[in-house]
Amino acid sequence: MSLLPSETKAQLAETPAPFNRAPAPDSVTTGPIVGSRKVYAAPAAHPNIRVPFREIALSDPKEPPVRVYDPSGPYTEADARIDLRRGLPAIREGWIAGRGFDVVAGRALRPEDNGNLPDDRIAEACPAHRTLRAARDGRMATQYEFARAGIVTEEMVYVAHRENLAREGAHAEAAARLADGDSFGAALPDFVTPEFVRSEIARGRAIIPANINHPEVEPMAIGRNFLVKVNANIGNSAVTSGAAEEVEKLVWAIRWGADTVMDLSTGRNIHNIRSWIIRNSPVPIGTVPIYQALEKVGGDPVKLDWEVFKDTLIEQAEQGVDYFTIHAGVRLAHVPLTARRVTGIVSRGGSMMARWCLAHHRESFLYERFDEICAIMRRYDVSFSLGDGLRPGSIADANDASQFAELETLGELTKVAWAGGCQVMIEGPGHVPLHKIKVNMDKQLAECGEAPFYTLGPLTTDIAPGYDHITSGIGAAMIGWFGTAMLCYVTPKEHLGLPDRDDVKTGVITYRIAAHAADLAKGHPAARVRDDALSRARFDFRWEDQFNLALDPDTARRFHDETMPKDAHKVAHFCSMCGPKFCSMQITQDLRREAEAMAGMEEKSKEFLDGGGQLYVPAAE
Amino acid sequence: MSLLPSETKAQLAETPAPFNRAPAPDSVTTGPIVGSRKVYAAPAAHPNIRVPFREIALSDPKEPPVRVYDPSGPYTEADARIDLRRGLPAIREGWIAGRGFDVVAGRALRPEDNGNLPDDRIAEACPAHRTLRAARDGRMATQYEFARAGIVTEEMVYVAHRENLAREGAHAEAAARLADGDSFGAALPDFVTPEFVRSEIARGRAIIPANINHPEVEPMAIGRNFLVKVNANIGNSAVTSGAAEEVEKLVWAIRWGADTVMDLSTGRNIHNIRSWIIRNSPVPIGTVPIYQALEKVGGDPVKLDWEVFKDTLIEQAEQGVDYFTIHAGVRLAHVPLTARRVTGIVSRGGSMMARWCLAHHRESFLYERFDEICAIMRRYDVSFSLGDGLRPGSIADANDASQFAELETLGELTKVAWAGGCQVMIEGPGHVPLHKIKVNMDKQLAECGEAPFYTLGPLTTDIAPGYDHITSGIGAAMIGWFGTAMLCYVTPKEHLGLPDRDDVKTGVITYRIAAHAADLAKGHPAARVRDDALSRARFDFRWEDQFNLALDPDTARRFHDETMPKDAHKVAHFCSMCGPKFCSMQITQDLRREAEAMAGMEEKSKEFLDGGGQLYVPAAE
Repeated sequence: MSLLPSETKAQLAETPAPFNRAPAPDSVTTGPIVGSRKVYAAPAAHPNIRVPFREIALSDPKEPPVRVYDPSGPYTEADARIDLRRGLPAIREGWIAGRGFDVVAGRALRPEDNGNLPDDRIAEACPAHRTLRAARDGRMATQYEFARAGIVTEEMVYVAHRENLAREGAHAEAAARLADGDSFGAALPDFVTPEFVRSEIARGRAIIPANINHPEVEPMAIGRNFLVKVNANIGNSAVTSGAAEEVEKLVWAIRWGADTVMDLSTGRNIHNIRSWIIRNSPVPIGTVPIYQALEKVGGDPVKLDWEVFKDTLIEQAEQGVDYFTIHAGVRLAHVPLTARRVTGIVSRGGSMMARWCLAHHRESFLYERFDEICAIMRRYDVSFSLGDGLRPGSIADANDASQFAELETLGELTKVAWAGGCQVMIEGPGHVPLHKIKVNMDKQLAECGEAPFYTLGPLTTDIAPGYDHITSGIGAAMIGWFGTAMLCYVTPKEHLGLPDRDDVKTGVITYRIAAHAADLAKGHPAARVRDDALSRARFDFRWEDQFNLALDPDTARRFHDETMPKDAHKVAHFCSMCGPKFCSMQITQDLRREAEAMAGMEEKSKEFLDGGGQLYVPAAE
Repeated sequence: MSLLPSETKAQLAETPAPFNRAPAPDSVTTGPIVGSRKVYAAPAAHPNIRVPFREIALSDPKEPPVRVYDPSGPYTEADARIDLRRGLPAIREGWIAGRGFDVVAGRALRPEDNGNLPDDRIAEACPAHRTLRAARDGRMATQYEFARAGIVTEEMVYVAHRENLAREGAHAEAAARLADGDSFGAALPDFVTPEFVRSEIARGRAIIPANINHPEVEPMAIGRNFLVKVNANIGNSAVTSGAAEEVEKLVWAIRWGADTVMDLSTGRNIHNIRSWIIRNSPVPIGTVPIYQALEKVGGDPVKLDWEVFKDTLIEQAEQGVDYFTIHAGVRLAHVPLTARRVTGIVSRGGSMMARWCLAHHRESFLYERFDEICAIMRRYDVSFSLGDGLRPGSIADANDASQFAELETLGELTKVAWAGGCQVMIEGPGHVPLHKIKVNMDKQLAECGEAPFYTLGPLTTDIAPGYDHITSGIGAAMIGWFGTAMLCYVTPKEHLGLPDRDDVKTGVITYRIAAHAADLAKGHPAARVRDDALSRARFDFRWEDQFNLALDPDTARRFHDETMPKDAHKVAHFCSMCGPKFCSMQITQDLRREAEAMAGMEEKSKEFLDGGGQLYVPAAE
């Protein structure tokens, strides 16, 4: 099965809105990224914990292979044996089983979970079976609770090893010595220990989103003292897309580097589509439960209530969703503050809750029932992603009273969630011009006690629909540098339509650029290893190494081959930008040899410059 | 004629490197950008000065048309009558003729100007005839000299009107009141007067690159108190591309918003290809004369000398090139400082001069003859673009001793050029991580007396070949905000190959985003007009207005139509992201009406929040 944009369109043409018969997936993209291989490595003293990395071997024997962070799961193994109907291996099963949770029967599936469809239109659920668990009353359940109790979980050991990547070995040590960023108060350690992970989680400064009913997840951390992470959104809507496409989008997004994936589906078959996604996802899955709750009440936000919402939380928590966006910061009193905005409330969840509050003229039930929400989420270790329902949808609305009033409420709720034993991160930005970005970060750190910030973009101008991956990639790099822990991607289709396969890839790569630029600028001890390896390959005309070290080897190789099609040119000491005669790299390679031969010349030149360098005498004088 | 990438490839296959028979252009892309029309407006008291703008009419009668800056020249007129063999109208002819320059015969064409090709392989030169002029000894020639003498030229009047764009009218006044940027010491006026332009040029803080032999140019300013500008590079190389393609790339680049274009050609027929470009360019054209000088000495930098370089300067100045990149800052003593760099010297001109200096073990002839260079450039008002031959080519080399030693030399040369009556800008960056960008700007302002900074990118990481428009767009937005006057674009093909038509467009749009994000952040008094107009269109579901206000209406429209193909959906109050039921924009539009109906509610909510907003009582207590 391949899901090219043209097929998406063909499917659309056959099945008019608003309903699609969603096919069950049968296969997805597998195999390593060209030039890389999947390796697993165990932390010292934990031989049974297999942490995945992607290793890029280089053609120069003097160059060690470069090991990069790899969220792509078993799909990129060379001999990947994927059976979507069985789901991924439940690598956490043993760890979870050892923690003494209750095995429960679980909530029975209800017709409204899949949009009250007749049987012949219901998409098949993923048949993979997993033991369903929930925390016992009075027993610890969440990574936060274990961390607070001083317990280092297997997930923390896993994450520590994963985050260190190239921080071991001579090259990494050299790079660490060169790391010279400005981290704005973050405290990246030279080396990540399991105890460091524990202390960051206990402090509320990091989370490991990992539902006890998602044993397939490869643990990862979100926090400003770890690598900056990237989230990709997938999800069908009433107008387009089905189950097969969504699973392929998940696999495709993590292949290119998405660290978590949010399923923002709003159409029918939502429960069953989600079952395929979760059983086959090695990355944490986030959702916005109110989207499904709204489906259950026929699409009218005014009809939402606590019972249907609570039921949806339990439904999704039992399925294994790792984090929930909860828009509990949209309070009744905030809503009128948005009335004079240029673009009002652009968050779907935020607008639903605002509608509810106004229609009933009551405080938000999410806010009033927040303790009960905590109790449910704690039971499965679902992390909070406190939603920014009032994020600005335009440059004009950035940093306004309603946005910051909500952020203050999110700060208040963060403490409630921690008191309830839950892991928490905070959602932010939207459209924010460059000069208003930093205050968002500073205010979030202050209000929310350094809980991880998770921002959309921000988009730094409104005038480029079709290129909002770029308008927002600019803002994302900056806010990541300032301390945001995870960047929610934006695709080229933002504001215009649902992303296809190419858009998902473009969005993920753009955000990997932003995250890496931020890691470099923060002075991450290992970030420069890959830059330096690629730059050395570039200088040495090791074209294949340059392609393989790129975030997207396929595109780099294709672009090169478009103007230099011959195989001989892959080893050429020039490219089509300059041609063989003018290549500056070639000139400087020769130059270096000459300059180095001039022993002592460097010293002399320094003396010369220190002396003022006054060789120049204006010719006219 | 259309120049699609596939044709470029076909041409390549037929004509192996290093030679192309370059066809003469016959036609280029014309007609307005969809949804826009070209308008000309005259400044008060100057009815004969026709300043071009692009006007976007909106469908809502309450919304005034949005007038945007337009460097695209007559090509985007509705009934554009373009004859490439006659060149564009010489709009400055009368102004220039009135300044008392000598009419000269000019230098005779030499065989080496086109690479010593036999007659049957020489591409035709553009047959358009122009009066050839040079300054008389002792008479003022440059915009800098006129400005210093207190004279406001027609070019300054033109530029003032052009820069004001939407700064007139009620909407602009409202926007100006809202402008709240942080300009880091720039001093953007509320309104640009011709006298302000003169004073900025006299102060050396801005330039109007406009060779007296390029009467077709529509004057534009480069300076940090004006709109941030974008340069696009075109140019054939020995491996690919010919005259027809280069003229089309010029027209294509300015269509999407390039303010100046550099012709970086290095192949044969270089003189004749340039004649087509200049005669048909409404934007300033920049070159790197040493590229052609190198052609004339058979490609060996060691054989370069002052005579061949001087001859090339005169050749190109007489043709009408508006600014020259001169790598006079690469001094003998700087070269050994680069020996231990990861990527050495990546500037082509820089590496040539470094090679020359080392081979002869002599100070650079560009540096030693700088006064003579000034005298030649002054005679035609060719502006200096002082080249950064030692810019860093990798994150590892950013802000190193050689880069900053050269910048100090450029500061010294800036003062020499001013003393010689010349306009000057300074080239900068390359590869620079986020946290090292600002010091580049601060140092440039300090060393070069606020002469305009003109930077490549900077690229904020090395690991994304194929996406370097994005790695560099991030850095460009930041350095533009900090004060860079013009941003040199980078295309997706950077480091990999020569850009085709699509790459040029992508590069230009990306850099228009960066420049606009910078203008917004600097608090430009009119920058937000377009953002706000687009955001209002978005909120009102005026899809066509949203497309037309976009930097690239074609792509925005196409992306929308891919998932919402029906015409009816162009007026739909939803898009495929959410579908008809969940649209947050739709919900908030309803919401706004309700919220506004709740008179006084906003006041009440403020009181509530001021009082601490303590409605929340934890349910468990």
